[in-house]
Amino acid sequence: MPATKQWQLASRPVGEPTHDNFELVTVDRPEPGHGEVLVETLYQSVDPYMRGRMRDAESYADPWNVGEPMKAGIVGEVLESNADDIAAGDIVTGDGLWAEHAAIDADDLRTVDPELGPVSTALGVLGMPGATAYFGLLEVGQPKPGDTVVVSAAAGAVGSVVGQLARINGARVVGTAGSDEKIDWLTDDLGFDAAINYKETDDLGSAVAEACPGGVDVYFDNVGGEITDAVWPLLNEHARVPVCGQIALYNATELPTGPRKLTKLIETRARVEGILVRDYVGRWGEAFERLSRFIQNDELHYRENVVEGLENAPDAFLGLFEGDNIGKQLVKVGDHEY
Amino acid sequence: MPATKQWQLASRPVGEPTHDNFELVTVDRPEPGHGEVLVETLYQSVDPYMRGRMRDAESYADPWNVGEPMKAGIVGEVLESNADDIAAGDIVTGDGLWAEHAAIDADDLRTVDPELGPVSTALGVLGMPGATAYFGLLEVGQPKPGDTVVVSAAAGAVGSVVGQLARINGARVVGTAGSDEKIDWLTDDLGFDAAINYKETDDLGSAVAEACPGGVDVYFDNVGGEITDAVWPLLNEHARVPVCGQIALYNATELPTGPRKLTKLIETRARVEGILVRDYVGRWGEAFERLSRFIQNDELHYRENVVEGLENAPDAFLGLFEGDNIGKQLVKVGDHEY
Repeated sequence: MPATKQWQLASRPVGEPTHDNFELVTVDRPEPGHGEVLVETLYQSVDPYMRGRMRDAESYADPWNVGEPMKAGIVGEVLESNADDIAAGDIVTGDGLWAEHAAIDADDLRTVDPELGPVSTALGVLGMPGATAYFGLLEVGQPKPGDTVVVSAAAGAVGSVVGQLARINGARVVGTAGSDEKIDWLTDDLGFDAAINYKETDDLGSAVAEACPGGVDVYFDNVGGEITDAVWPLLNEHARVPVCGQIALYNATELPTGPRKLTKLIETRARVEGILVRDYVGRWGEAFERLSRFIQNDELHYRENVVEGLENAPDAFLGLFEGDNIGKQLVKVGDHEY
Repeated sequence: MPATKQWQLASRPVGEPTHDNFELVTVDRPEPGHGEVLVETLYQSVDPYMRGRMRDAESYADPWNVGEPMKAGIVGEVLESNADDIAAGDIVTGDGLWAEHAAIDADDLRTVDPELGPVSTALGVLGMPGATAYFGLLEVGQPKPGDTVVVSAAAGAVGSVVGQLARINGARVVGTAGSDEKIDWLTDDLGFDAAINYKETDDLGSAVAEACPGGVDVYFDNVGGEITDAVWPLLNEHARVPVCGQIALYNATELPTGPRKLTKLIETRARVEGILVRDYVGRWGEAFERLSRFIQNDELHYRENVVEGLENAPDAFLGLFEGDNIGKQLVKVGDHEY
């Protein structure tokens, strides 16, 4: 029986994850069961939310088990199919593994049309991060022309789409990011009105205030922590605050504390609301259609940061917490042309 | 010229307000200008939000000035009118002063029909607190039958109406309050399913969890601080959190800190939204009509805590922070039958 490699969760991290938490294991290549397909991974996604899966705590999804393979969004090629709507040779995307191959329920996959663009975008701008940005900004954030929209982790897979969609909707857009290269990308290429390198800023509150002279109407929160502390005092009346991620807190070993801020909501009647893309799964097609049209019209730019080789997947994941990635962080698995 | 007494802000409090912050002054009784009426105060309201007016900071309303009279909701009798729609002898309610008499713009007043019930209720269940509860719960909280609704400061003017409206809407209702007398009133008279005396509870989180075995669908937050810390971990998916008050924080001299909690919103896609009753001013009549019908049908009970005499108004106000009041805290000004 042919073999395949997969990453398993070796142990649960305490604080920042390390390489010791991951183990690369060679296993038998799985046989697809009824309704399943065997997929060869082309690209694997790594995302900040995965830090929550490594924790042994109930959340909006089950935690990963120690000694078992870890899950990931993937793009892959179907090698064998026991499902009606998917054929061998199809390119698919959906819920796979940190692995060269996986047997996946066809219900957890959708086919990707390689004519529409690079298949890797099914994990980024035309995938979960793109849909997260689309619904989080438009449904919860609801930017209006002339609004000021602030987005944190603005050079990331979600944030970069949020900022450009806000710009397309006529908003003034301000982003935060952690390197000058990112700042330049935001302002020079993506059309942000201002961008703040939070790592080089002594007084974040003043920097955000200076970039937002009319206050903040929408704060798309990917980060939490001190950046959130800096933005909330600037919220305008009836501001909207989609909370999409809190990466600044994910590696904390004790419950993080910070300024109590809820009084600001009474002053402003601002609305703070969590966003999870799976709540909109029936409408993802709408998002991808509009986002791909914006890309074709050169109104929406994206970048991918590709690490080569499944063996380097933990590096790609750990790099998310160092802010290494500009745009979508991917792992290219295997040797292929896609 | 006849004289009248009024309280003026003598100094801004640092931390908890004290009697030194207030000065009772005798001034000339004002003459109503064009469009104004001269009102003799019958009842004056004291409310937690007034702590914010004593601060020299921009908020949703202008701060009071040192050396000037302090504002308050009042019910009073019109002695003279220079306005078209209000006549001498009318009972009115609206934006008055901590004073025996005030000249008030008729636009800031509405007439009260004494046939509908005690005129004092225009400052409580059929006034601003009642409307706050009504719109905050129904518009932001949106309780559904079978939901669990938690309300803090549940024996206060707002909280007691929130809990009963939630009960009328078919929700399971849990309240927090600070004395056994209040707890008994909530469960024995107002129909709360459970009530927690937070001052007598070592582990508030466990106490709330025990009272809410199905989690929390609506948390009406009047208090903030540790009670809020205890309730948030129990929020259910798509929970609603109207933030109406944060009295636990109002006397803080340094920015209060606490656990960072926004990750919970991603897990649950809960919505947290500030509520301010003036946003609904065009619809107050709807609230009063429904609330008075509930009172007539004995579905809605209320209590008033009346301090006699304008000279005792600061005591009534300071008592709010000690949790002295059950139901609406009022000051009866002057000697009258109403």
